[in-house]
Amino acid sequence: MITVNENFLKLQAGYLFPEINRRAAAFAKAHPEASIIKMGIGDVTEPLTPAVVEAMHRAVGEMGKRDTLRGYGPEQGYAFLREAVVEHCYRNRGVSIEPDEVFISDGSKCDTGNLQEVFGLDNVVAVTDPVYPVYVDTNVMAGRTGPWDKAKGQYAGIVYMPCTAENGFVPDLPDRPVDLVYLCYPNNPTGAVATAEQLKKWVDYARENKAIILYDAAYEAFITDPDIPHSIYEVDGARDVAIEFRSFSKTAGFTGVRCAYTIVPRGLKAWRKDSSSVEIHPIWSRRHCTKFNGASYISQVGAAAVYTEQGKKQIQEVIDLYMDNAAVMCEALGKLGYAVYGGRNAPYVWIKTREGIGSWEFFDLLLQRAHVVCTPGAGFGAAGEGYVRFSAFNLPNKVKEAMERIAKL
Amino acid sequence: MITVNENFLKLQAGYLFPEINRRAAAFAKAHPEASIIKMGIGDVTEPLTPAVVEAMHRAVGEMGKRDTLRGYGPEQGYAFLREAVVEHCYRNRGVSIEPDEVFISDGSKCDTGNLQEVFGLDNVVAVTDPVYPVYVDTNVMAGRTGPWDKAKGQYAGIVYMPCTAENGFVPDLPDRPVDLVYLCYPNNPTGAVATAEQLKKWVDYARENKAIILYDAAYEAFITDPDIPHSIYEVDGARDVAIEFRSFSKTAGFTGVRCAYTIVPRGLKAWRKDSSSVEIHPIWSRRHCTKFNGASYISQVGAAAVYTEQGKKQIQEVIDLYMDNAAVMCEALGKLGYAVYGGRNAPYVWIKTREGIGSWEFFDLLLQRAHVVCTPGAGFGAAGEGYVRFSAFNLPNKVKEAMERIAKL
Repeated sequence: MITVNENFLKLQAGYLFPEINRRAAAFAKAHPEASIIKMGIGDVTEPLTPAVVEAMHRAVGEMGKRDTLRGYGPEQGYAFLREAVVEHCYRNRGVSIEPDEVFISDGSKCDTGNLQEVFGLDNVVAVTDPVYPVYVDTNVMAGRTGPWDKAKGQYAGIVYMPCTAENGFVPDLPDRPVDLVYLCYPNNPTGAVATAEQLKKWVDYARENKAIILYDAAYEAFITDPDIPHSIYEVDGARDVAIEFRSFSKTAGFTGVRCAYTIVPRGLKAWRKDSSSVEIHPIWSRRHCTKFNGASYISQVGAAAVYTEQGKKQIQEVIDLYMDNAAVMCEALGKLGYAVYGGRNAPYVWIKTREGIGSWEFFDLLLQRAHVVCTPGAGFGAAGEGYVRFSAFNLPNKVKEAMERIAKL
Repeated sequence: MITVNENFLKLQAGYLFPEINRRAAAFAKAHPEASIIKMGIGDVTEPLTPAVVEAMHRAVGEMGKRDTLRGYGPEQGYAFLREAVVEHCYRNRGVSIEPDEVFISDGSKCDTGNLQEVFGLDNVVAVTDPVYPVYVDTNVMAGRTGPWDKAKGQYAGIVYMPCTAENGFVPDLPDRPVDLVYLCYPNNPTGAVATAEQLKKWVDYARENKAIILYDAAYEAFITDPDIPHSIYEVDGARDVAIEFRSFSKTAGFTGVRCAYTIVPRGLKAWRKDSSSVEIHPIWSRRHCTKFNGASYISQVGAAAVYTEQGKKQIQEVIDLYMDNAAVMCEALGKLGYAVYGGRNAPYVWIKTREGIGSWEFFDLLLQRAHVVCTPGAGFGAAGEGYVRFSAFNLPNKVKEAMERIAKL
């Protein structure tokens, strides 16, 4: 008799964004005249830049000719892209990463979801609260948690580290031992950043406690403050204890193109039950090569074009546009008296709703009365209750209109 | 202390194709003058067809304009592609599949590797021997097997079903209960096909024993015999017990483009430990949406172009070219006295080596003396020992030259 993986049955409700889309679609159907402004899911609105488009046309052309066709590529990604990543994302900041430590993939959602597979089911997982739901849900599926505790809004067995205005949305060290720590900075959803000192504290913790940090740096391109690290490897000792995820999705408008990468440093170790150590690099490489067949050649060529002179310049203009949006939102929402966080080194603005109004209640209110879609903070965890997230990925005139509509409420 | 998933440590040697590439590269380095003909990995040699190239250029253009940019798509795939799959792959053969039962992905390797996640770890897995290594390795990683048994060349806990010339490389029903059965027809590596009667026997077995069949039909486009089913759903009752995988990789030259799909019929069930049943469709959907962010829009547009009038015609010409290669190989190797299998409804030719010569020994012999790369049958399982696989994916003149070189040995 074929049995189901009952861990999947612990999962609560729908994944956050499908639920948002469902409510927005139901409202749109009931009010076809309403012009809805979507500031919920963080999806890009600016097109691919000319350098990327040109490179991808070239790649498509190559695929249509026998002499230049590319079939199966290296599962870990083409050398041209792995080398460009090292050169333009790490060496330029004095960080030592080798091309064979770069694993190209089709997305950070996949990478952050899949990476946990190489670790034992007995590890204690720590996540921030609020948190990107994929980190938690994929550990639930794997069986690293107990059941859902409805009263707490949490899964048993996971260590939730509250991120509040008091700690600047960077968690304090946990009060009990944890093995696998998910950190995301610039943070989704709060827009907070971590300083080198804050990251150092976590790297030291991991080294002392034989823990591993899964560091999601998908939004590093939006950092404007020169003192904020773009990579956890800017902190001494991080290579031994941290795996870093990055993506072209938000950096270069690749949400529909699909390309990302993960750094697994050689030398980073986990332990067997008999206390002997084992390197993770070859294990992740084996996993990647066995369950994945490489990102599309066309996507990889497009991604490499991001690192050309023209590519860099064009990407920066798009990032600036989004960050101008974030500044507009911070100012408008601040003027309305909301406590506003993020939006300075991240494309997300995180605000506290009015006293006593829940996240989903505020979401429904904005949808129904301002026809604006935000993301309820409660969807990211119990500590997100009473907050909502606005995405800066939008057209500037839409952002301004949304702010005007909210001001009129 | 972070522990490793020790199941990964059970995995043997490298994955088959990296090992082949390693040996071929070492030989090429030592003999730079040798012109090596690669008939090992089944990678396409014909370029994308004009209809696909044109569609992908259009898609790239759309991504470069604000009004037509596509960001995150539906994780399960765009409706235009899911509907085209239903129309041109199932309805045209009288099979009832709905578009929402089609899950678009970036490859069948990923799909066949990931699908096992939704089932319990206590299930008994049955595979053919020889077998596509991904089915086995991903179950080893998940923990459904015991250690590697070196003497048998098998993992403990897996039921290996020998496929031999005697049973036409379609396995007999197992002599003990199994829960999850991997079948692949047209078969990789043997090139065998399963008749409707043979599939019916398996569907009946699954229905009677509450088992599920994971049916890999990645090579269905190469079937030439009109009596051979292209889909397991052509067999009555299969919707309740079978999940089917298909790919654009070999059908349309998409090995570097990445697009495939999986059919998970509504109504197909697995069981909880308390013997109550649960539908797999919503569980797979949740898995797919949580750990995957959709295939590239550009790849999906290219895939849809395969189903246009021009697309179908162009694809068929390429398939005919490969199947002509297969016919040349069958004839040449048959004339040399080898027992030759496959190659009539599949792009793989499977031959028995001379008595007493092992697969890897024959591989090395062909590489060193004919400069031809094949795939050692032993790499696909213990029962593949003494066989090698030749791929028909090659240029016709290379195939002819390879056959001439082998004839001279």
